[in-house]
Amino acid sequence: MAVYHAPLRDMRFVLHELHGSEPDGGEDGFAPDLLDSVLDEAAKLAETVLLPLRQSGDAEGCALENGAVRTPRGFDAAYRRFCEGGWQGLSCDPGVGGQGLPERLHKLVEEMLCSANLAFSLFPVLTHGAILAMRDHADATLRARFLPKLVEGRWSGTMCLTEAQCGTDLGLLRTRAIPQDDGAYRITGTKIFITGGEHGLAENIVHFVLARLPDAPAGTRGISLFLVPKFVPREDGSPGARNGVVCTAIERKMGIHGVPTCALSFEDATGWLVGEPHRGLPAMFTMMNGERLSVGIQGVGIAEAAYQAAAAYARERLQGRAPGGARHPDRSADPILVHPDVRRMLLTMRAHAEGCRALSGWVAWHLDAAAHAADARARQASEDFLALLTPVVKALFTDLGFEAASLGVQVLGGHGYIRDHGMEQLLRDARIAMLYEGTNGVQAMDLVGRKLPAAQGRLLDQFREPVADFIAAHAANAGLAPYVQPLGSAFGRLQSATRHILEADDPAEPAAAAAEYLRLFGLVALGFMWARAAQVALPRVQAGDEAAFYRAKLATARFYMQRILPQADGLHAAIMAGGSSIAAFEDAAF
Amino acid sequence: MAVYHAPLRDMRFVLHELHGSEPDGGEDGFAPDLLDSVLDEAAKLAETVLLPLRQSGDAEGCALENGAVRTPRGFDAAYRRFCEGGWQGLSCDPGVGGQGLPERLHKLVEEMLCSANLAFSLFPVLTHGAILAMRDHADATLRARFLPKLVEGRWSGTMCLTEAQCGTDLGLLRTRAIPQDDGAYRITGTKIFITGGEHGLAENIVHFVLARLPDAPAGTRGISLFLVPKFVPREDGSPGARNGVVCTAIERKMGIHGVPTCALSFEDATGWLVGEPHRGLPAMFTMMNGERLSVGIQGVGIAEAAYQAAAAYARERLQGRAPGGARHPDRSADPILVHPDVRRMLLTMRAHAEGCRALSGWVAWHLDAAAHAADARARQASEDFLALLTPVVKALFTDLGFEAASLGVQVLGGHGYIRDHGMEQLLRDARIAMLYEGTNGVQAMDLVGRKLPAAQGRLLDQFREPVADFIAAHAANAGLAPYVQPLGSAFGRLQSATRHILEADDPAEPAAAAAEYLRLFGLVALGFMWARAAQVALPRVQAGDEAAFYRAKLATARFYMQRILPQADGLHAAIMAGGSSIAAFEDAAF
Repeated sequence: MAVYHAPLRDMRFVLHELHGSEPDGGEDGFAPDLLDSVLDEAAKLAETVLLPLRQSGDAEGCALENGAVRTPRGFDAAYRRFCEGGWQGLSCDPGVGGQGLPERLHKLVEEMLCSANLAFSLFPVLTHGAILAMRDHADATLRARFLPKLVEGRWSGTMCLTEAQCGTDLGLLRTRAIPQDDGAYRITGTKIFITGGEHGLAENIVHFVLARLPDAPAGTRGISLFLVPKFVPREDGSPGARNGVVCTAIERKMGIHGVPTCALSFEDATGWLVGEPHRGLPAMFTMMNGERLSVGIQGVGIAEAAYQAAAAYARERLQGRAPGGARHPDRSADPILVHPDVRRMLLTMRAHAEGCRALSGWVAWHLDAAAHAADARARQASEDFLALLTPVVKALFTDLGFEAASLGVQVLGGHGYIRDHGMEQLLRDARIAMLYEGTNGVQAMDLVGRKLPAAQGRLLDQFREPVADFIAAHAANAGLAPYVQPLGSAFGRLQSATRHILEADDPAEPAAAAAEYLRLFGLVALGFMWARAAQVALPRVQAGDEAAFYRAKLATARFYMQRILPQADGLHAAIMAGGSSIAAFEDAAF
Repeated sequence: MAVYHAPLRDMRFVLHELHGSEPDGGEDGFAPDLLDSVLDEAAKLAETVLLPLRQSGDAEGCALENGAVRTPRGFDAAYRRFCEGGWQGLSCDPGVGGQGLPERLHKLVEEMLCSANLAFSLFPVLTHGAILAMRDHADATLRARFLPKLVEGRWSGTMCLTEAQCGTDLGLLRTRAIPQDDGAYRITGTKIFITGGEHGLAENIVHFVLARLPDAPAGTRGISLFLVPKFVPREDGSPGARNGVVCTAIERKMGIHGVPTCALSFEDATGWLVGEPHRGLPAMFTMMNGERLSVGIQGVGIAEAAYQAAAAYARERLQGRAPGGARHPDRSADPILVHPDVRRMLLTMRAHAEGCRALSGWVAWHLDAAAHAADARARQASEDFLALLTPVVKALFTDLGFEAASLGVQVLGGHGYIRDHGMEQLLRDARIAMLYEGTNGVQAMDLVGRKLPAAQGRLLDQFREPVADFIAAHAANAGLAPYVQPLGSAFGRLQSATRHILEADDPAEPAAAAAEYLRLFGLVALGFMWARAAQVALPRVQAGDEAAFYRAKLATARFYMQRILPQADGLHAAIMAGGSSIAAFEDAAF
């Protein structure tokens, strides 16, 4: 029953039309046709291999049997197909077996995987994070031994941070690492909530584990990062003896049933230090920041899948009549697509899915620029942009993905609540993305507490200047006024809220404003994407084969400006009211 | 793991302090102590009998075996306890075995049942709807035969409206009723989504079925209401022969696993007409309107349960430090209650749970007045108020209940997503309430399309006048200004939006504004409740045993005014932008 077709036309719009030339001035040598053909292949994989396993994977779930995790039927074969196609290494260095394709392509492929089968997509996304951490922090020996296997997908990766007593606050972690004479370490401790912590899809699993050395200072400055494989590789690189890592339980959870969430017990497990002693947290954050962008994209994938399924239902379900009278008097009733409230819900989902895709395209453009731009200042500017936008992408997109899934359920009515249509699964699956890799509240705190004040606002400039420049450049453009004027108004609200936060004396004030501020920031960022989309679409709506595509783009932009962006007013007012009502409430009264 | 204590102090606040004297001038003879003692007993039932079955009922679910539905372990005994305590007939006429207690008490008891175990609460709530339909529309013979059994809870009730091809649009229904010589009818057809359609908790199940007579006109004017029992009663009133009603399937669904959602096949089933031929829809709406209020209360119950569980977790979970520095330096970390964003989430849940309870108390006051006020004009005024507020209560409360459950998950982080804490169950259970008894979009259409324009705005006056009077009466009260001024501003937005809708020429315009308008209306109604609560609390915050209770009330009111009510601005702007962007989007482009 699941419906999904990769939105290839809109992806090409983001890739080729919205964000302009290639980050390095068009010299990275990726012909648009090449990128498009990869998108086409990814769409086939998502639609024909992963989508058919979405509902069955949810219904069957995973099982822990004698320490081994059984994944749902079909995941094994699908994972082989995924690896054989070279998808794991899509954007990785060809020197370690990757395809060397740009991130702005990779992120679109990730979105397709999330739309088709969010649970399945978590295996490769964690491996990708592990690849990034290895690439940037592991020494040459470890890299040579592990990186090609991870890039191939033959071995998979995990992140082992959380323990029962510590989630957000990693300073509390207790897992210990004892150095051995041979340069390795013995790791002992218990980790929970480890996505893909044990399974049989890959030959080996490479755990990235945060632990404390014997001489570690207390708190977050005493945490080191270790690589702990499920099987210790032999000299020839093949998986050797079983390491001291045992899956003791898998969680019963709301959704993403197709991927196991494991409790792992490390008992004198052999591991190797990645990066410097006590500097594990910064190293892990390489992985974490990549994951946060990917988690944001999960929200886009869910929003797109929910939109498509809801629109398909709304076209076919006959119920009631249009407000002005029957639109299809020959049929027993009109399709529910005629009802303004159904259209409102669909347009909200569409505006968010496409808006987030556009913003994610901008972010991916900077990922490529940060890696490849010739000019060091340009690379730094892109790094700044990414640091600023990462918490916004993670929290905003996952909030909107969840809201889109809930709207999808609403469009289907009672049929949305039962399993058959698969819509309630999207809602259950979507909910996790607001929690893992740092809850959305943690993202909001990162934005207001670290990113805004960092380097005298240098990070913020990377966002503020392009938006301000765009508004100024098009202030006199009558055709764009319906898009630029609302954007300008909301942008003014954002500037005012930013000042409020940066100028606050009370350290609790930014924290009290954080959630609303992140949403306001996100609404403005999406508004900028929609105004940019309108700018691209406007000259193309009158004629040509694709005029209908550009008309829809322009119409969605208008809907966004008129019906969604005004939420900026209420968010601004709530922020400006300050946090005294939050602080003043007596603890004992909760 | 489930946490819940009935919020008795706040319930007494709503019952005795907020809505003033009894509707009939204090002469209905219910001493406050009597009502309070019933609340205490209900709390025991909810906390000790129903709550322990919430998570086990979800995990076990229902099963269909040889046409019979097995409910979760313990539901049988709990249902017997419920009936033996006389809870089914709490507000029913003593002449048919009821307790004759007021609705303003009954609705608070309903809330407790929903907090403790939403799935279980659906059995009695549907029976209550059946009792209302019988009382108002069935003839004396049917009433004598069925009403006492329903009031006792010995027999339970269902509503059989939906068919595969018709949900919202009942004009499409196909179930047929053929008159027999003995005055009975033979009913044939298939109904779906029948909550409690088959089970063994009660001796008999009384289905209220919409069907068409042979001479019925097409559409909604050709629908009649029939009573169809599972077992046809013998002369002595005991259940006799099995009737032609078969449960052919139960749905696999997102939540409310403890109650079966059934497909029922009626095959020449014996039934009796309730009310006039072809007038089934108005009769069913007696039941439906009662159910809609009860469904709204499900949202309050969920919000309260989620708030309590989240607050308990936030008090105990140690993670991170308060923004200004450690609040508990002696412990490894501060409880997460110190974090402003966690407090914001808790206060949002609390403000909505208490605000909705207060509004539901006002509605319940009018239920009693509509039934018992001596003056016919007063009764009519209360009927008007109820007609206006019913869609608001249903849609607003269930939206906010779902949002509160989602915030509850967020407060718990990853622990909110796994089954153990029971928070994700609240989210899954809560989601149904936005769908059944008319989706929230249908409620919004009912508000703008029927209730606003009805009788030249007479219904609306019942809400507008008390709010306007309150604002005028306290305009010069400096102590109340922090509550009355924001209320006045939001009320102005509501008036402006109301004019926009009532003066629209295009019939699609009210429909396009409906969802945002209902939310705006709801925010103002809750704002009125919070301003009223502040008025009651203000003189009591300085001294006395209960000063802390009133301080918390006042502080929550302030939070609502500063951090939630400003959303009215964005809603107003979206409404005033009009529906052209919704209408203009080309159907083919969805």
